[in-house]
Amino acid sequence: MKRLFVHATILTMKEGQAPLPDAAMIVEDDRIRYIGPAPSETDGYDEVVDMTGKAILPGWVNTHGHAAMSLLRGYADDYPLKTWLEEKMWPMEARFGPEQIRWGSALSVLEMIKGGTTCFLDMYDHMDQVGQVVEEAGIRAVLCRGAIGLCSEEEQRAKLEEAVRFAREWNGGADGRITTMMAPHAPYTCPPDYIARFVEKARELNLPIHTHMSETEAEVQLNVEQYGHRPVEHLRRLGVFDGPALVAHAVHLTGEEIEILAEHGVKVSHNPGSNLKLGSGIAPIPEMLAAGLRPSLGTDGPASNNNLDMLEEIRLAALIHKGVNQDPEAVPSTTALRMGTSYGAEALFLEDQIGTLEPGKKADFIAVDLTGPHMQPLHDIESHLVYSASRDDVRDVYVDGRPLLRNGECLTLDEEKIRYHAQKAFDAIRP
Amino acid sequence: MKRLFVHATILTMKEGQAPLPDAAMIVEDDRIRYIGPAPSETDGYDEVVDMTGKAILPGWVNTHGHAAMSLLRGYADDYPLKTWLEEKMWPMEARFGPEQIRWGSALSVLEMIKGGTTCFLDMYDHMDQVGQVVEEAGIRAVLCRGAIGLCSEEEQRAKLEEAVRFAREWNGGADGRITTMMAPHAPYTCPPDYIARFVEKARELNLPIHTHMSETEAEVQLNVEQYGHRPVEHLRRLGVFDGPALVAHAVHLTGEEIEILAEHGVKVSHNPGSNLKLGSGIAPIPEMLAAGLRPSLGTDGPASNNNLDMLEEIRLAALIHKGVNQDPEAVPSTTALRMGTSYGAEALFLEDQIGTLEPGKKADFIAVDLTGPHMQPLHDIESHLVYSASRDDVRDVYVDGRPLLRNGECLTLDEEKIRYHAQKAFDAIRP
Repeated sequence: MKRLFVHATILTMKEGQAPLPDAAMIVEDDRIRYIGPAPSETDGYDEVVDMTGKAILPGWVNTHGHAAMSLLRGYADDYPLKTWLEEKMWPMEARFGPEQIRWGSALSVLEMIKGGTTCFLDMYDHMDQVGQVVEEAGIRAVLCRGAIGLCSEEEQRAKLEEAVRFAREWNGGADGRITTMMAPHAPYTCPPDYIARFVEKARELNLPIHTHMSETEAEVQLNVEQYGHRPVEHLRRLGVFDGPALVAHAVHLTGEEIEILAEHGVKVSHNPGSNLKLGSGIAPIPEMLAAGLRPSLGTDGPASNNNLDMLEEIRLAALIHKGVNQDPEAVPSTTALRMGTSYGAEALFLEDQIGTLEPGKKADFIAVDLTGPHMQPLHDIESHLVYSASRDDVRDVYVDGRPLLRNGECLTLDEEKIRYHAQKAFDAIRP
Repeated sequence: MKRLFVHATILTMKEGQAPLPDAAMIVEDDRIRYIGPAPSETDGYDEVVDMTGKAILPGWVNTHGHAAMSLLRGYADDYPLKTWLEEKMWPMEARFGPEQIRWGSALSVLEMIKGGTTCFLDMYDHMDQVGQVVEEAGIRAVLCRGAIGLCSEEEQRAKLEEAVRFAREWNGGADGRITTMMAPHAPYTCPPDYIARFVEKARELNLPIHTHMSETEAEVQLNVEQYGHRPVEHLRRLGVFDGPALVAHAVHLTGEEIEILAEHGVKVSHNPGSNLKLGSGIAPIPEMLAAGLRPSLGTDGPASNNNLDMLEEIRLAALIHKGVNQDPEAVPSTTALRMGTSYGAEALFLEDQIGTLEPGKKADFIAVDLTGPHMQPLHDIESHLVYSASRDDVRDVYVDGRPLLRNGECLTLDEEKIRYHAQKAFDAIRP
């Protein structure tokens, strides 16, 4: 299958490259073959797609979430993390079975595709269900069985074995669209030796580690009380940072901790919407950028966000650090766009495949409508995308060169069926 | 004209009233006549509208902005307020003529209608153009000629006279959809005696006063240096608060200042998007709410936002104060919705007419689609509206009982024509 896209404004997101006006892109099977001026010859393509009035750019990369939690969207708003988690989420999640995971994940993947996300990380339970949804939907994903270690030694072992089994079985799955990680849930939910066992397995399997870290001030204090160190030093000592690692949140960090993360090349998933909503705080993103880190963006689970709108996260990342630091240059629009695309690919260790548009890379891209009144006058497209566009401006989504969304319609998933089953799966467990 | 709307979830936004499932509303001419269970008889209506899968609620009320500045959207991002204003905006605005005001305002009104705003405040220049756009568009508006007093006595006098002429001529215009205010731009751009003359004229005309106040820390310090008081005390002494008054921004306030505003019943327009983007800071909204103030929401001009999406302001108001105060209960979703609707009506002194849905009030309302994947499972509609919906979920907009938007299509304005002329008006003045 060979497609020619013409008359697009192309944002490759390569460093130092300005948007290309009236440009063309050739996609052959799952790869980008060419980006530049329109070729004179339009024969020999299976399809020529007119992109007049649209911008083409890499799809959003959502680097932290728990897709199935969409079933609990709006179920318990306006509680602090500890109460929300221990009194609201965990009791409901205990009732989750494969049906809940399947339809909650399908609902989320549908929402993500419609909003322009082409790759997402998911850390949850019953991950085979998520893998099947990803296979069917055509999206790209990094999947990991998240393990909470506050349980018996026997349960711990079973979870670890399941995490290993899943990671081994699904790595490279769905025609290579799925990769896997090893995911001890967090320092405050996993005893140190349990984290150490995950590190050991991750090294054996040659997989990255993903974990929550320093989301709330209380959690940081608890870590100091229990283990004598703040979470960064704690994880460093456990060897988590000696191989590829991605931490989610990283809200409460000292300057020294930022240095440690930078030295070890640790990837960060900034989750502004969730951190705001749960009252966790504001991550020191300008300081991370200054230290050379390239933070990516994640929505977190849709029960604490409450949507999966990456464009909203990009906008929040561009806005909140300006306001909090009273510095309008804190996170420029171009940086925010990179956080949602190329830095996201780096965070998932997929930068060789995705995150920028260039010949040889996977054809994971989106087309955004530029004709809405909120996008006029049309003279700074990066600014308009970050500060003014909305998710519904995303009209087309391609992953591996395959169209998943065309003119706002999802081609791979049945929207009505998913809505029906998601509601049913929620009704089955509500108290 | 008599319309019956059936099978809607109705959010009246009246205090203490939960959303009404499967409810009906009767609208006769410009007024709401009935809200409740569907009447058994559906004869005798000019139209029966099926609202299955939609929520009906009051339209958004945008209490501060400069519509024509949409022409400068994205023109100068990521600068601090003073530089942005003095070096970027003012030189460009000096080139604005009636054409720029007309098409900039039309572009903004189109965007506002499509996003569900049914009433907006506009403070700008060449206001007759804005009045004509409002007349044609069918939207409701509060208009005021904003006057900067950093000029000769003669120019000051001319501006004041124009402000008076405009306020007098247009108050009650467009079949009563337009009301007016008197608007000295800000304490830092108007000498005290100039503000005093606006106060005098406002009292004569029996009109409210609207002004910018305490947007940046620098501006507050300047006020102390120049006049010996912070802006709140300064304006209080000038008599601004002795009659109806609405201040925009109110970012940098002490507890004592909040008390003064509350005592005088001063209305506040909170502009979170603009305050974040310009790095101005975060207004103390939880403290204002605790003091009994009922802050409303405004987008500010689209050159510092950069859109006119009131749902985004509602979401920002619900999110940022939770994050900054590390308090997930800071601004609950219901409060944020009221800030965008009923508190907005109060801020514009129109609460007898609009802001809640009840028999006798003006039929200014919107219908929001509830069927998107991001709105499932459907069990807390207020939460979903605030934390998960997007502007494109707004499908229908009515003002004075007249449909302005139906199924996302604007019925009163020509979108393509406006886009063309707005671009042309911008191109005519760009350097």
